[in-house]
Amino acid sequence: MAEVLHFPAEDAAKLEAYLPPRHSSLTTSESSQRPFVTLTFATSLDSSLALAPGVRTALSGPQSKAMTHYLRSRHDAILVGVGTAVADDPGLNCRIAGDESGTTVSSHQPRPIVIDPQDRWALTHDSRVLATQRRGFGLAPFIVTAVREPDEVKRQLLESHGGKYIILAANGDDGSTRFSWADVLASIASNGLQSVMIEGGGSIINTLLAPQNSHLVDSVIVTIAPTWLGRGGVVVSPDRVYDTNHQATAAARLSDVKWQPLGDDVVLCGRLHS
Amino acid sequence: MAEVLHFPAEDAAKLEAYLPPRHSSLTTSESSQRPFVTLTFATSLDSSLALAPGVRTALSGPQSKAMTHYLRSRHDAILVGVGTAVADDPGLNCRIAGDESGTTVSSHQPRPIVIDPQDRWALTHDSRVLATQRRGFGLAPFIVTAVREPDEVKRQLLESHGGKYIILAANGDDGSTRFSWADVLASIASNGLQSVMIEGGGSIINTLLAPQNSHLVDSVIVTIAPTWLGRGGVVVSPDRVYDTNHQATAAARLSDVKWQPLGDDVVLCGRLHS
Repeated sequence: MAEVLHFPAEDAAKLEAYLPPRHSSLTTSESSQRPFVTLTFATSLDSSLALAPGVRTALSGPQSKAMTHYLRSRHDAILVGVGTAVADDPGLNCRIAGDESGTTVSSHQPRPIVIDPQDRWALTHDSRVLATQRRGFGLAPFIVTAVREPDEVKRQLLESHGGKYIILAANGDDGSTRFSWADVLASIASNGLQSVMIEGGGSIINTLLAPQNSHLVDSVIVTIAPTWLGRGGVVVSPDRVYDTNHQATAAARLSDVKWQPLGDDVVLCGRLHS
Repeated sequence: MAEVLHFPAEDAAKLEAYLPPRHSSLTTSESSQRPFVTLTFATSLDSSLALAPGVRTALSGPQSKAMTHYLRSRHDAILVGVGTAVADDPGLNCRIAGDESGTTVSSHQPRPIVIDPQDRWALTHDSRVLATQRRGFGLAPFIVTAVREPDEVKRQLLESHGGKYIILAANGDDGSTRFSWADVLASIASNGLQSVMIEGGGSIINTLLAPQNSHLVDSVIVTIAPTWLGRGGVVVSPDRVYDTNHQATAAARLSDVKWQPLGDDVVLCGRLHS
């Protein structure tokens, strides 16, 4: 039986202004160019997601975990980078209570999207995301890759669980295998997914905070734990930005800011200036 | 005329549990080994104090500035590193309103302490901290140095304003010119100063957050602004800490945590586990 998480209605109400609209039936007939994008993650005071790449690091408290699953219940899709998928073997499902009795998990499950340009995620029958799907508590992932002919065994495995590959052209200016965020979001929207919660890891978050992408983000929800992980962690900090006078300037700033204590942590909600 | 700052009594009340006792007459007869130590600073979300060393960076809002000056009014001394003194030419005084009318500055002024092992601060008659003292709005600094015979012109300048040099032996394990924090704090206490607010910069804060020093800190008050400064800033993040199994572990954690929104910023109060 899956653990069922509870997030108090009064805490949920405080997040409402930063979430996708609950009833989007008015817009389903329009084919939106991109989904509503919520960027959400948890850091230490020194802005680390983890002690090191691939090291699962307990940072935020139990209330923050419940909040994450509540947020997942409010989005059509959740998105992570392949590094997170490889490191954490995550379930990528929603375990928030689905009814008043609080004994069963939400029937709404978000679609996991994994950004894997080089198709390197060693997905198997035993991967937690697929085991979770078979138990009826989640959906199989859509893997966004730049590989023209992804691994055939993985493709069949994915499709037998209801997932699939989405093949996109990579267009890193520097010759790297990187997607444009506009392309990724357009492909999500074209699959009928009207909202996506982007959870990490570090490089995904840092590129979305950069000026060239921040207009694609509708809201940001950051949980901060009262801990310093110390030097050498996986840090959220976008690339340096220079103004027109070639002076360093703040890379990103939130507006419509709301800070809400949650256990020992704080939850920061805001919107990115573009 | 100096600008007079106001900090609302209701905001001040929320900080009280983290401040030195208001009436310490019971302990004045005892010669305390060290003062009450409050570590306080303001960072971006990516834990930067400034865009680069020596670059004054507007981070937190006007309420946070007023809070800083309120905190200064509650301490016998304020301490900064020489880097901050050189970069900012700071006044190092308290400009909080001193009475109900709110038109005059507090008559209590903290003693500035500048940690300058190599006596490199180019203090002159025009330095803001001395000009402020001459105008009657602050005290001249005590400069803590490892230089046995500090610059004679500066010594006379300091002493003519009521400041002085404090000469301490440096004992960096690595041969560097560093003081032990226990020695610095003992020298502050031996000057009759029963509380000190330590404001920065980065290396001062990082060494105090390290496990070997964190027991010397009584409370921590951090202001966080909803901005990412980007890579390359002056970062608060202590050195990596390893547990007995040689695994990386969190470098420092706060207990008795309180988060309080203040304008667009948040103020985090807590105590360091030692």
